[in-house]
Amino acid sequence: MAGVQVLLGLLCLSSAQAGKLLVVPMDGSHWIGMKPVVQELGKRGHQVVVVIPEVSMTLGSSEHTTTITYPVPYTEEEMYESFKAGMAKIISQNIVTELDKLQNFILLLDIVGEVSVRNCESLLFNKTLMQKLKDWDFDAVLTDPFDPTGAIIAEHFSIPSIFMQVNLACGVDFPATQCPSPASYVPQRYTFYTDQMSLWQRTVNLMRTFLQPMACRHLYTQADEIASRFLRRETSMVEIMSHAALWLMRFDFVFEFPRAVMPNMVMIGGISAAKPKALPTDLEEFVNGSGEHGFIVFTLGSMVSELPEVKAKEFFDAFRQIPQRVLWRYTGVVPKDAPKNVKLMKWLPQNDLLAHPKAKAFITHGGTHGLYEGICNGVPMVMIPLFGDQGDNVQRMVARGVAETLNIYDITSEKLLVALRKVIHDKSYKEKMMKLSAIHRDRPIEPLDLAVFWTEFVMRHKGADHLRPAAHDLNWVQYHSLDVIGFLLLILVTVMFVTFKSCMFCFRRCLRKSQKKKNE
Amino acid sequence: MAGVQVLLGLLCLSSAQAGKLLVVPMDGSHWIGMKPVVQELGKRGHQVVVVIPEVSMTLGSSEHTTTITYPVPYTEEEMYESFKAGMAKIISQNIVTELDKLQNFILLLDIVGEVSVRNCESLLFNKTLMQKLKDWDFDAVLTDPFDPTGAIIAEHFSIPSIFMQVNLACGVDFPATQCPSPASYVPQRYTFYTDQMSLWQRTVNLMRTFLQPMACRHLYTQADEIASRFLRRETSMVEIMSHAALWLMRFDFVFEFPRAVMPNMVMIGGISAAKPKALPTDLEEFVNGSGEHGFIVFTLGSMVSELPEVKAKEFFDAFRQIPQRVLWRYTGVVPKDAPKNVKLMKWLPQNDLLAHPKAKAFITHGGTHGLYEGICNGVPMVMIPLFGDQGDNVQRMVARGVAETLNIYDITSEKLLVALRKVIHDKSYKEKMMKLSAIHRDRPIEPLDLAVFWTEFVMRHKGADHLRPAAHDLNWVQYHSLDVIGFLLLILVTVMFVTFKSCMFCFRRCLRKSQKKKNE
Repeated sequence: MAGVQVLLGLLCLSSAQAGKLLVVPMDGSHWIGMKPVVQELGKRGHQVVVVIPEVSMTLGSSEHTTTITYPVPYTEEEMYESFKAGMAKIISQNIVTELDKLQNFILLLDIVGEVSVRNCESLLFNKTLMQKLKDWDFDAVLTDPFDPTGAIIAEHFSIPSIFMQVNLACGVDFPATQCPSPASYVPQRYTFYTDQMSLWQRTVNLMRTFLQPMACRHLYTQADEIASRFLRRETSMVEIMSHAALWLMRFDFVFEFPRAVMPNMVMIGGISAAKPKALPTDLEEFVNGSGEHGFIVFTLGSMVSELPEVKAKEFFDAFRQIPQRVLWRYTGVVPKDAPKNVKLMKWLPQNDLLAHPKAKAFITHGGTHGLYEGICNGVPMVMIPLFGDQGDNVQRMVARGVAETLNIYDITSEKLLVALRKVIHDKSYKEKMMKLSAIHRDRPIEPLDLAVFWTEFVMRHKGADHLRPAAHDLNWVQYHSLDVIGFLLLILVTVMFVTFKSCMFCFRRCLRKSQKKKNE
Repeated sequence: MAGVQVLLGLLCLSSAQAGKLLVVPMDGSHWIGMKPVVQELGKRGHQVVVVIPEVSMTLGSSEHTTTITYPVPYTEEEMYESFKAGMAKIISQNIVTELDKLQNFILLLDIVGEVSVRNCESLLFNKTLMQKLKDWDFDAVLTDPFDPTGAIIAEHFSIPSIFMQVNLACGVDFPATQCPSPASYVPQRYTFYTDQMSLWQRTVNLMRTFLQPMACRHLYTQADEIASRFLRRETSMVEIMSHAALWLMRFDFVFEFPRAVMPNMVMIGGISAAKPKALPTDLEEFVNGSGEHGFIVFTLGSMVSELPEVKAKEFFDAFRQIPQRVLWRYTGVVPKDAPKNVKLMKWLPQNDLLAHPKAKAFITHGGTHGLYEGICNGVPMVMIPLFGDQGDNVQRMVARGVAETLNIYDITSEKLLVALRKVIHDKSYKEKMMKLSAIHRDRPIEPLDLAVFWTEFVMRHKGADHLRPAAHDLNWVQYHSLDVIGFLLLILVTVMFVTFKSCMFCFRRCLRKSQKKKNE
């Protein structure tokens, strides 16, 4: 028995051993989900090194970690100008076709992609810094695969990587994890379909599934080129991503439609929904002053705090006609007759507000952080998707009967009023949202603890090979058993051919014999 | 803030609320995995009612639960005689072909199936007891789908069911959960293939995949008939099983080849590997007396404690030639010259022995309980599969380089010696097993806690609908998008036809014009 105790002791010791983790995060809202994991790992005694560009929107130092910055060939002003211009172009439109939406989507992906690619080159070809990172001899890399840099570094240093991801453009995570996704009930991203599709929708979805590899190739053209140049061999991001040891998937099945997952995927949806804190006195007074009617929280995400005047007017006009108070993150032009029940703020404590018992509705663009905060706190939503995965996010909430959706392009005060009154007064929205909230919160282990555990697991065991499916060793033809089907057809044809030839041979022999007899 | 705290308080209260659980277990080794879950649930204050047949091998009362028995139309002697006769027939064979193995497999399945079916009829058509169970108004049913009874009762009472399963014959869990299993790397059960298959193996595997529904239909003929008769509608066990709220899968990926899983599957492999207890004094003395050579644990499972004399002789002869001591669960005939390093026992504390630091090897039939105890304690194995899923279990361990396998049909002392010496002296077996053990034990939550949590989850939320994939609403043609492909082909043919007809029309017009011109 003594031996077993020693062994257990050793295991416990190895669990507590400090490791070295390299973190290559993605800028913007993505960092909100990764930061608590990184800080917790640092707090647990690991040496956590976060490498970020000198210029960024949300990236910065975090507690219990070492932050290293690297120079990039653009200024903060240039970056913001580029984003702002793109967003303004999208939001200021009035009538948009499906083609416009696609163009908007590509426009924004290009802006984000361009920054990623410039960061990627700046870091990878920064020889001094790369040597420094190499000397550190990390146990693992934690990265967001939306930005290709971390994945390429892990490949270069041959160290296991952990990917924390939300929704990857073109759904590259499916081929990279070899996760089956039957087109009959798994809607492709940006189709805005649910898991219940009509024949026509399933047809579009299947065609989208076939086109997916092409879309990925197009989206990752620059990243593929940089990776090949840097690693000095012909490669692609899909191939590099397929080497990930573990995927921390930022979704939960109260949100995502149920579908197959792979053993090296860990679901950590709702990781950023922190415990609510008390509101500042002025806000507490404002929301409590709303009486029985309660209040509405309104934000369009960290990237959109302004609206064209004509669009903003529709919101002000709608809010004037409701008894609820409104807290709106808005920095645009304020009309002179702005209603008094609206409090405009540069920034608002979204989660703390949503957790308040008087919160009646949440007007949101459908970004994942806000979405999980809304679910967690059981607040029905009016959703106005702007770009990226938001259209799909919104569709998922609408399908569950906990949200109404509006189009930013043709929004009017009347439409907004109808939607708001629906989610506030039709009890089914609140009831369904409370049920979703209860299910989401009822979990055996918190998403943050799960993310920390699995990152440490990869560091401890130098990967997670036992979770890697053998599908990675097969090519497309083999995976789909097309060679087997070909082989079976070959056997069938051979058998048929031999049978036919044998019959013919027998037939001819018989014929010859009978002719001989005749001749005799 | 107060509201949030109240809400959290309510949630916590609801978590702690006592529920009512009906348990319909499966006899034999299956009960070993379910019993700790059932007892823990009873301990946590739930009303747990276990319904078992009056005659059984391992079933009986458990702590903190209410056990109800129902009469069955056979005696204990008849049951044991039937099992013993079947086992003796299998083990006493000397040379067997693949066809013999298949016949043995079917023979044993028939014996087990026959008991299940008789139990099923005895319980379902026991009106008094069924009324009593109905009056209880259970929140959920926990059952082992190897025995159809529990699943049919859940369907009848319209209450959510939780299935705890090991390996279901014919892999019925794949269609029932709609879990994708590409034939290219997911070996079908009883093929004894690994996840790395040759072209020929993949061909056999694909054909087996196609034949699987037929095999299921054959295996569940009687159960399907009873279910249809009892529920008074045409149904099948596959359909009934597809309504399960949750599947507690008794495997871990240190054992099972990595493959896709569904959101309502919870992996609880190793649930029965308890914390080791101290050995009784006589055993402790015996194993410590083995010195540096250590000892070997040998059992062939709860159903096989005897061997034909001629086969037993091979084992005795081998053990005589090794310096290790051997603890063997054996009740058969003992030869006069039995070697002194062998201790024969009616029953042995398998897990406690394997946890001993002097345990060098484990001779086992490859049942899942022993297998996880071996993995957990890091003891290399010599495996002698006898029937059922054991051949596949063994293949998985051999593929990981932690075990050698032997055939019971042609075993000799020489072969046994070679295998034993290999796993004891070739350090790679022990090293790989220790690595597997470390990975298996390094988990964020214990399998027992996970099983208890998810059973309570289903009881609390009256199911787990948010984890049910929409694939269940599609038929086979729709699931595989065959209707979509047909639709696309129809469009293609129509377009081609219209194009052809238009061309023909134009061509004819041109021809007519030119003829007219000629005539003029």
